[in-house]
Amino acid sequence: MSPPVITLLTDYGVDSEFPGVCRGVIARICPDATAIDITHGIARHDVRHGALVLRSTLPYMPLGIHVAVVDPQVGTERRAVALGCSDGRVLIGPDNGVLSLAAAASGGVVDAIDISRSPHRLEPVSATFHGRDVFAPVAAALAAGAAFAEAGEPLAVDELAVLGLPSPRREGSALIAHTLLVDVYGNVTLDVRHEDLPGTGLILGHRVEIQTRDLTLAATFTGTFADVQAGDLLLYEDATRMLALAVNRGDAADMLGLEPDGEVRLTPL
Amino acid sequence: MSPPVITLLTDYGVDSEFPGVCRGVIARICPDATAIDITHGIARHDVRHGALVLRSTLPYMPLGIHVAVVDPQVGTERRAVALGCSDGRVLIGPDNGVLSLAAAASGGVVDAIDISRSPHRLEPVSATFHGRDVFAPVAAALAAGAAFAEAGEPLAVDELAVLGLPSPRREGSALIAHTLLVDVYGNVTLDVRHEDLPGTGLILGHRVEIQTRDLTLAATFTGTFADVQAGDLLLYEDATRMLALAVNRGDAADMLGLEPDGEVRLTPL
Amino acid sequence: MSPPVITLLTDYGVDSEFPGVCRGVIARICPDATAIDITHGIARHDVRHGALVLRSTLPYMPLGIHVAVVDPQVGTERRAVALGCSDGRVLIGPDNGVLSLAAAASGGVVDAIDISRSPHRLEPVSATFHGRDVFAPVAAALAAGAAFAEAGEPLAVDELAVLGLPSPRREGSALIAHTLLVDVYGNVTLDVRHEDLPGTGLILGHRVEIQTRDLTLAATFTGTFADVQAGDLLLYEDATRMLALAVNRGDAADMLGLEPDGEVRLTPL
Repeated sequence: MSPPVITLLTDYGVDSEFPGVCRGVIARICPDATAIDITHGIARHDVRHGALVLRSTLPYMPLGIHVAVVDPQVGTERRAVALGCSDGRVLIGPDNGVLSLAAAASGGVVDAIDISRSPHRLEPVSATFHGRDVFAPVAAALAAGAAFAEAGEPLAVDELAVLGLPSPRREGSALIAHTLLVDVYGNVTLDVRHEDLPGTGLILGHRVEIQTRDLTLAATFTGTFADVQAGDLLLYEDATRMLALAVNRGDAADMLGLEPDGEVRLTPL
Repeated sequence: MSPPVITLLTDYGVDSEFPGVCRGVIARICPDATAIDITHGIARHDVRHGALVLRSTLPYMPLGIHVAVVDPQVGTERRAVALGCSDGRVLIGPDNGVLSLAAAASGGVVDAIDISRSPHRLEPVSATFHGRDVFAPVAAALAAGAAFAEAGEPLAVDELAVLGLPSPRREGSALIAHTLLVDVYGNVTLDVRHEDLPGTGLILGHRVEIQTRDLTLAATFTGTFADVQAGDLLLYEDATRMLALAVNRGDAADMLGLEPDGEVRLTPL
Repeated sequence: MSPPVITLLTDYGVDSEFPGVCRGVIARICPDATAIDITHGIARHDVRHGALVLRSTLPYMPLGIHVAVVDPQVGTERRAVALGCSDGRVLIGPDNGVLSLAAAASGGVVDAIDISRSPHRLEPVSATFHGRDVFAPVAAALAAGAAFAEAGEPLAVDELAVLGLPSPRREGSALIAHTLLVDVYGNVTLDVRHEDLPGTGLILGHRVEIQTRDLTLAATFTGTFADVQAGDLLLYEDATRMLALAVNRGDAADMLGLEPDGEVRLTPL
């Protein structure tokens, strides 16, 4: 049998010792577990960024226990939860929506518990580092075979926080999209999925007018960066099959002055 | 039996290949070892930063061999050492004080050896990368079962370098503290431990005057960031149970103009 | 028997989730594999930087499967390849030269296959993330025991891309070297190896005139940083046994205004 897998996604920052402390806690409780760092580079306190990255990366992770900590309300009364999903994955984190997109993509939550006062937490629980004191030790205890139902208090699934996302809409021949994410390279993910494309008139290889609050530019809808000249704007399907804007060897967010949730009007040319 | 654990803490930087090379060296010598990166984000050449983080994180690590490399004098005659501690941990690094706080917290050093010319080092030893050539291979050899006493030359415990730290002092109703550390978020750790608080008049939920060289401000002594408004200054016990200053969703070091070892006068209001 | 080893070297950036996704893909296909991150901090799209770091770090890695992804042409017709080397290592990455220096240092390529359409890739293959969809899954399949010859189409070794590097040359009493790399500290690696030094008049402990396009300065050829004063320029053999320039506790690239491939004239004084 394969060793149990625990994945970690946080906004702790790669330079800090907080991810290492969580791995230490896991190794003390469940030495056999394989810990996989999805990322610790989520923008600080950006719950939506964490939720979107968790949703897009989880399909590539082994079935396991998946900890996500983006937690601006740490130390307050916000709940800490563990969620058993239809596909067998267990999601652990604060109940602020960071788990909700991944939970839906994992077939929905079947069993939920409140782990704020879990018997597996480390005492004394600090007010500021629940990754170390609550989330990692509960994940490790479950990986080591502890019963899910006994790791916390039962919780109704419909009480869980759910994250809202903008949706694209049609306006004449244009598609009104929104900026969901900007990655470290300045590539901009829009709220348009592969399945949303049919009927929009947006066709691979054709030109598209891109209109933001301040600018109107033309881009090519293309398969990859190298299909356009260096410095040119492109529209493409990114690796998560979402529509995105980029500049070949450049920074699209910067070129377009885009901010999260900003509207982007796409008109086929 | 659990596999042997080797932890790594350095100032090599997360962008560099040096941590990866150390992990490769360990995997060649002791393939069974579990390597845990505590952090590679210690401020470059900041021995005290490394020593404080090693002390605060080690209790959360499995019992093992703990390598710490913050080594501005690499290539000179400074010793490389391995220290067996009372609690069974083995600490490995340069003899410049980076190990000393963790050694004391581990019950003190029982056995010390000078590993500068260890039979387990990699030849030729470079002048600039002892993590690769000395510290990692000696740690891996010990993890693989090599005898401690034969990994180096015996060394008297009282010859080991010890790091000095500032201490807080009372002055009337004020507590004069000092800046020990500033983390990546601008949170400022002071030299005041949980045990130092009784008798200071600093009480959870009350207001405190914070006076630095240039500024006098009021803060709330609170449990967690979210207890104050965004942008407000707070005094709190951090996750290592040290007193610290922070700004909710902001940068306290920046707001207060604080530098390492700077005095901070705390007066209950 | 030791578990199979897969090493990863990319320009994905330590803040991104892309390295974590590759580790997830590997763990799904070959749960026993030990994944070692050499670095994900290669300068974006800098194929030569990746090639040089892969060559200098591979000797410290266990024999295994070594993935290197620095891939400005991802999504175009550039080949994806797996290379079996004389010393038993398997190198996997884009066929743009990033593997070529390490392959030569591993005794040369014995067997090459084009894995662009490997049966082990993940479908649908994205246009922008071949680390996830091609390189990691093929590496993991090989680690899990898949036959090399069946993982891709046969490819003639002399069709592989090879990276050219500058070479130092003599000019009177001077050695004309070139900037190969600048690391995160501003240390500058030159294209002069340990073996190139005899006959140059460059002698440990002696002074050397350093002439760049804009500046002429004197440095000491020394063993390590601490042999000169803080702020002083030194010439030294770095940990990869290449000649390098540094400033003790400073930034040599900045002081000298050096750029990649820039000429540096070294004259013994």
